[in-house]
Amino acid sequence: MRHFDLCIIGSGSGNSLIDEQLDDQSVALVEKGIFGGTCLNVGCIPTKMFVHPADLASAPERSARLGVQLTRDKVDWPGIRDRIFTRIDAISEGGEDWRAQAPNVTLYRAKGHFTGPHTFAAGGEEFSADRFVIAAGSRAVVPPVAGVDPQWWDERRDERPAWAHTSDTVMRTDDLPGRVVIVGGGYVASEFAHVFASFGSDVTIMVRSQGMLREQDAEISEAFTRSMARRVRLLTGVVPTEIATEGDGTARVLASDGSEHRADVVLFATGRRPNGDTLNLPAAGVETDREGYVVVDPHQRTTAEHIWALGDVCNPWQLKHVANHEAKVVKHNLLHPEQPRSSDHRFVPYAVFSEPQVAAVGLTEHQARAAGYDITVAKQDYGSIAYGWAMEDDEHFAKIVAERGTGRILGAHIMGPEASVLIQPLIQAMSFGLPAAEMARGQYWIHPAMTELVENALLALDV
Amino acid sequence: MRHFDLCIIGSGSGNSLIDEQLDDQSVALVEKGIFGGTCLNVGCIPTKMFVHPADLASAPERSARLGVQLTRDKVDWPGIRDRIFTRIDAISEGGEDWRAQAPNVTLYRAKGHFTGPHTFAAGGEEFSADRFVIAAGSRAVVPPVAGVDPQWWDERRDERPAWAHTSDTVMRTDDLPGRVVIVGGGYVASEFAHVFASFGSDVTIMVRSQGMLREQDAEISEAFTRSMARRVRLLTGVVPTEIATEGDGTARVLASDGSEHRADVVLFATGRRPNGDTLNLPAAGVETDREGYVVVDPHQRTTAEHIWALGDVCNPWQLKHVANHEAKVVKHNLLHPEQPRSSDHRFVPYAVFSEPQVAAVGLTEHQARAAGYDITVAKQDYGSIAYGWAMEDDEHFAKIVAERGTGRILGAHIMGPEASVLIQPLIQAMSFGLPAAEMARGQYWIHPAMTELVENALLALDV
Repeated sequence: MRHFDLCIIGSGSGNSLIDEQLDDQSVALVEKGIFGGTCLNVGCIPTKMFVHPADLASAPERSARLGVQLTRDKVDWPGIRDRIFTRIDAISEGGEDWRAQAPNVTLYRAKGHFTGPHTFAAGGEEFSADRFVIAAGSRAVVPPVAGVDPQWWDERRDERPAWAHTSDTVMRTDDLPGRVVIVGGGYVASEFAHVFASFGSDVTIMVRSQGMLREQDAEISEAFTRSMARRVRLLTGVVPTEIATEGDGTARVLASDGSEHRADVVLFATGRRPNGDTLNLPAAGVETDREGYVVVDPHQRTTAEHIWALGDVCNPWQLKHVANHEAKVVKHNLLHPEQPRSSDHRFVPYAVFSEPQVAAVGLTEHQARAAGYDITVAKQDYGSIAYGWAMEDDEHFAKIVAERGTGRILGAHIMGPEASVLIQPLIQAMSFGLPAAEMARGQYWIHPAMTELVENALLALDV
Repeated sequence: MRHFDLCIIGSGSGNSLIDEQLDDQSVALVEKGIFGGTCLNVGCIPTKMFVHPADLASAPERSARLGVQLTRDKVDWPGIRDRIFTRIDAISEGGEDWRAQAPNVTLYRAKGHFTGPHTFAAGGEEFSADRFVIAAGSRAVVPPVAGVDPQWWDERRDERPAWAHTSDTVMRTDDLPGRVVIVGGGYVASEFAHVFASFGSDVTIMVRSQGMLREQDAEISEAFTRSMARRVRLLTGVVPTEIATEGDGTARVLASDGSEHRADVVLFATGRRPNGDTLNLPAAGVETDREGYVVVDPHQRTTAEHIWALGDVCNPWQLKHVANHEAKVVKHNLLHPEQPRSSDHRFVPYAVFSEPQVAAVGLTEHQARAAGYDITVAKQDYGSIAYGWAMEDDEHFAKIVAERGTGRILGAHIMGPEASVLIQPLIQAMSFGLPAAEMARGQYWIHPAMTELVENALLALDV
């Protein structure tokens, strides 16, 4: 049986562990899917490469009221798709070639699973390793709907009808779909609704709950839901009950409210599941929690002493920047086991690149109250600042939750243009313990930049 | 002779001094021009209200290479102009009415000047005051050109030809000018060039020096100049030598390079001069420096003990956020003279809202080297981060200058999308003494947000 110093399962953030500091170790790298992981191939990066053209394609919606008449003449979906994936596929392939050529790395391009604490089987071979890193990520899940086979995204992928998609495949369709039904109300649904609506598709969203982005602060969720309902056909409290393939290959979607919809594409944006369940983890003594996440300690070590985990397989944030952070921690701890570092999950921000954009960090107002904090909350409209006047904005806002007395910022929530950028000074303040009043008054805020939104929200807090 | 507790000269940032804390004081407020000052009426705010529609109007320039064909059908200049000034004029008039009704405030709507240390003449009346605040701002200056009379913007304003403009008037023209000649290469020239070019005017810029934004970091200035030269006819090292009014009321502009240009609008964007020279300051014992700025101490007190100054009349930044800051300092020091505060001018940021946007804070690379710092410089392209891939960016960048050893950030310079927002975390870090490496590693940066530009620039520093 071949033996390695280290086995890394997953070529996304796990791949970033391998550099010259591991040159003296033999490494097995196992990847069952596209090389490079979710973010690069089917997640953050290609989606944003669709979102940005969508932002431009939707400019006519925003410009008319400002006195600028634009027409969207054409969206070249095949051109956009090929531009994006020509670039991304080359990065994926280049990364794989690079690894394949590394003298100390052996690449296993196959599904794999533990056969014991120190042994792993992949591609018909069993090998052993001193240490393992589980960076196997997560996968899109499809809900039970009559006429939909979850195996279309696994064993029976050849049988998948042309209309059936998750985020793994929807960006590679041949043509811009004329009619899109999106199932789900989270960030994936929100981003693709923006992309397809901006490009001119007729979009219907079916969301089981009463609104979109329900994990956000309640006011953000409500406002986002209202905003999205103006752009697409938004059906809340509705799920698809049956989907049939019509003679022309399109879908006929029956919904729980009795409505019926024809669609060229049905996109299931109904969540993701960590991939630990595919790895026979009990054989290695690696435990998972009730939701399937690999259990790790603050050093990213699993319940097996010689096995670490990082990224979507072990954390519920499912965010690349968290995986990157954890990869740095694991890397350090592999090299310096006597002085292990801990991950910092105190202030994990995230953004939804839809129209409008949403970004958040820390506690929602509800969470802060539930946790017993004595809080002060400020809600500041873009329309209240000079740059918001320029945009004639009457819809978007920032909301900051702080602890009364100390001025400690507990959470920040922004819905509107450039939310993902505007939130960074707040992430920074929370991470370094800068209280609200000092943050507001101890630095200049360029007038009349959009950042005055944050300044004024901070000043409006009754700390 | 009527006597006041306080006389404030200028209704821009000076007006913000007046609130309920001054209710027990009699206040004279002197304003010779439009109520509300430069920022509100002819500066920051209306310009940005033109710039944002211009950003949208120029979307077709950016979108085509991304696969989205947009056409700019129409720009409704009169509609944009009226929307903007209907809003702004109402704020100006409302502010004036509010002040006029305040029982303790007497409004003098006239030019005025000191007649002695404690006496002032305005509108044919002479009055005295215990204390004064000079917040008289600055004015656009017009260079000596044959055929151009500087008095067109003062005493002989009725004689001004329709083509002759400064930033005070150019936003109120009847129609979108077909041909615009802009004289100057600073931020006013850069912003209006963006506005008019985006709206479809034929734009020529004449700049005396070899590039635009010459006060910026040299690499920013060079890159901005190249960028602008792709959008407009940019003549560097050129000044207008003579301007004649043609029979149809348009201008014939002769330039120092021998070229001749017809223009519906000639915009002089050739700098601003502090208004101290109009106030007979020697009579009050208030000194100015060689460039005409009122000399103040760190408490904003002039060389006359009972007279303070703030804003463009006394500081060369000519920025509203600096004037606002100084107004807060003056306000405190008027109310608490025994415990005076000082202004903080350490890290004054600024932005140019052109296409591309530019934002900066702190020292340029050249300034840092000249000051003797041992520096490390990182230049990070937007094209190197995921969001830059989405934009297919190959032009824009951030540049950070830090002190080697300490990691202290000395300056930051960004040219590209959302520069005015992206720079805020750097302003914050400089203001609160957060070193580069800690800033980069001690917080999350949302992937794949545009903020990764700053993160990666910080990580690239060799501190």
